[in-house]
Amino acid sequence: MMRTTVAIIGAGPAGLLLARLLDVAGVDSVVLESRDRAYVERRQRAGILEQGTADALRAAGAGDRMDREGLPHTGIELRYDRRRHRVDFPSLTGGRSVLVYAQTEVCKDLIALRLRTGGPLLFGAEALAVEETGTQRPRVRYRHQGRERVIECAYVAGCDGFWGVSRKAVPPALSRTYERTYPFAWLGVLADVPPSHDELVYARHDRGFALLSQRSPTVSRLYLQVPEHTDAAEWSETDVWDELERRTETDDGWRLKRGPITAASVTPMRSYVHEPMRHGRLFLAGDAAHIVPPTGAKGLNLAVGDVVTLARALVAHHATGDPAGLDAYSATCLRRVWQAERFSYAMTAMLHRHPDATPFDDRLQLARLDRIATTRSAEADLAEAYTGLSVD
Amino acid sequence: MMRTTVAIIGAGPAGLLLARLLDVAGVDSVVLESRDRAYVERRQRAGILEQGTADALRAAGAGDRMDREGLPHTGIELRYDRRRHRVDFPSLTGGRSVLVYAQTEVCKDLIALRLRTGGPLLFGAEALAVEETGTQRPRVRYRHQGRERVIECAYVAGCDGFWGVSRKAVPPALSRTYERTYPFAWLGVLADVPPSHDELVYARHDRGFALLSQRSPTVSRLYLQVPEHTDAAEWSETDVWDELERRTETDDGWRLKRGPITAASVTPMRSYVHEPMRHGRLFLAGDAAHIVPPTGAKGLNLAVGDVVTLARALVAHHATGDPAGLDAYSATCLRRVWQAERFSYAMTAMLHRHPDATPFDDRLQLARLDRIATTRSAEADLAEAYTGLSVD
Repeated sequence: MMRTTVAIIGAGPAGLLLARLLDVAGVDSVVLESRDRAYVERRQRAGILEQGTADALRAAGAGDRMDREGLPHTGIELRYDRRRHRVDFPSLTGGRSVLVYAQTEVCKDLIALRLRTGGPLLFGAEALAVEETGTQRPRVRYRHQGRERVIECAYVAGCDGFWGVSRKAVPPALSRTYERTYPFAWLGVLADVPPSHDELVYARHDRGFALLSQRSPTVSRLYLQVPEHTDAAEWSETDVWDELERRTETDDGWRLKRGPITAASVTPMRSYVHEPMRHGRLFLAGDAAHIVPPTGAKGLNLAVGDVVTLARALVAHHATGDPAGLDAYSATCLRRVWQAERFSYAMTAMLHRHPDATPFDDRLQLARLDRIATTRSAEADLAEAYTGLSVD
Repeated sequence: MMRTTVAIIGAGPAGLLLARLLDVAGVDSVVLESRDRAYVERRQRAGILEQGTADALRAAGAGDRMDREGLPHTGIELRYDRRRHRVDFPSLTGGRSVLVYAQTEVCKDLIALRLRTGGPLLFGAEALAVEETGTQRPRVRYRHQGRERVIECAYVAGCDGFWGVSRKAVPPALSRTYERTYPFAWLGVLADVPPSHDELVYARHDRGFALLSQRSPTVSRLYLQVPEHTDAAEWSETDVWDELERRTETDDGWRLKRGPITAASVTPMRSYVHEPMRHGRLFLAGDAAHIVPPTGAKGLNLAVGDVVTLARALVAHHATGDPAGLDAYSATCLRRVWQAERFSYAMTAMLHRHPDATPFDDRLQLARLDRIATTRSAEADLAEAYTGLSVD
């Protein structure tokens, strides 16, 4: 039986950053990841880092490549009614901005750091159950290299995403769940073409939402609202470009650049919160505890917020026995989580066309966009939420 | 056949203020009101005047009693989760506030002015149809003292509310309507008891919305969210007070004062917009063109905004033939109307319990209220919208 102080389930950004923060603090941990390294380093996810998130990665010593290759963005553009309105972050938030740097790159950086300088990170290690969370010595059962094994530890960090086993260790009688699903999804594509606009474009259109984003100066990341359960294979390259063009057209002659599409996938939309985020010695973090629809780009940032709070509390408890941080963990994170849920829902509702939308609903969306475009307080509210819900 | 420059249908605040503004400018008009004077002076409606509305009434010479008897309010209180948060208007809006002065008092003041100093105001004169709006000489057919009569005029102002005939004169093919109904209503009561709180209290509760308002230092005006189609007679005085108390309770010992209820009625909730607000020589104003749910207290203020814009345009066109103001009337008003629709909808959605609300929806409401209570930009957005959508 392996022993460690913190057993971390899942090598997504939450688990990897937590492992790194514990490495830096000298607290030993083991990371279990059911997939192999190549899979983890390939999966396409979000790419907008709030200022607090970028700062947390820098403080963890994981910011070098991010600062070289990440693209600082000081605003976003809203498009509606063939018009465009730029939201300028620094002037609205006292200097804040965001960094475009893909989650998959964050994971690569953190994996490299862990393998070079930190404790164990086991790929292909599938967590089966979290047990004895009510005791001082919880355990994680997992399968690795064909055999069932056990880690005994002082704390378990459940960073294994929405479908992981960690959350199942909380007895149903103690769980409260909050959920909303949406009757639409995002078709996301990667294309080998320079971005058509130098910042992100969020477009509200009667045919549905579109988002123009980017991975690098030569790679565009583009999204279209599609009906839920859409199969990406139904969409030809031409269909994708034609539809992106329709939904982002303006009256001032702006043009969408086209190029070869190298990947396409469909992301479902869901809002979900599990309360509490702690059960005894088990702490849930990131998607294991909560999901936001991608419209506000909050998923990765929430995960980072969770593990920064958790690492501080674990280190304090491990070093001094002070339980205050661990006792406050769930409530501290949930305040931020619910603000992210609120913001992500509001952005989703303002920009997507619901299949049952009435003409009144359409006008309400336009009035919301107009309010942001014409009222500094409303615009600042958006800019502040977009650039960062404070990390604690 | 009677002739006038402006035939005004309806002696609510829109029609009466328009008549007054035309009197002041020396443009003659006739006001037709289907009800009798006593009825008009008794009907209970809104009572929150935005600063721009109060200024418009003063500029029209109708502000003397309002300034003596109206109660300036510099904030509102939000209650939720047994907590309270005060929104301070002046500090958030650069000095703006509102005045509590009942719509029925505004109407009394304007009726007295018109009868003393202005043109005809016919009570019991029921408009039957607006005709020839596409010509230079539109006509209004109406019934008065048992006989059908006709007014020929240069302009018709349709200020006859949601159920009036004016809007029907716009051909359906040219009308676009936008509507939302709500599965709840307000039970409103008047009570002979000093207000329990010196400002308005907007309470969000799992049992439904409540609003504590006031008519004077000795008369309270109180509202409860009830299911739509509720009959006010179903509610005993004790039921009303008990329910108000439950929904407004706080953890800091605040107490609701009870007293005899002198009137009770149920107000349905509706959002409605008719576009355009002009058809030829017919101009719709106030509830004839748009309805908001009462949560944002915007109905009366929108009506005043409409007729201030309309009076200016009519006076200019009548004096100089310049059509710019009349041509812009509908679009100018609709920008303000849609912002009021947006705000009223948002306030309604944040504070009322929808019968189908999920636990996620409840938490979203609390997160919105928390955002306002903790973020200056979000709070300022609310305060600015509450104290006034600019009059043009």
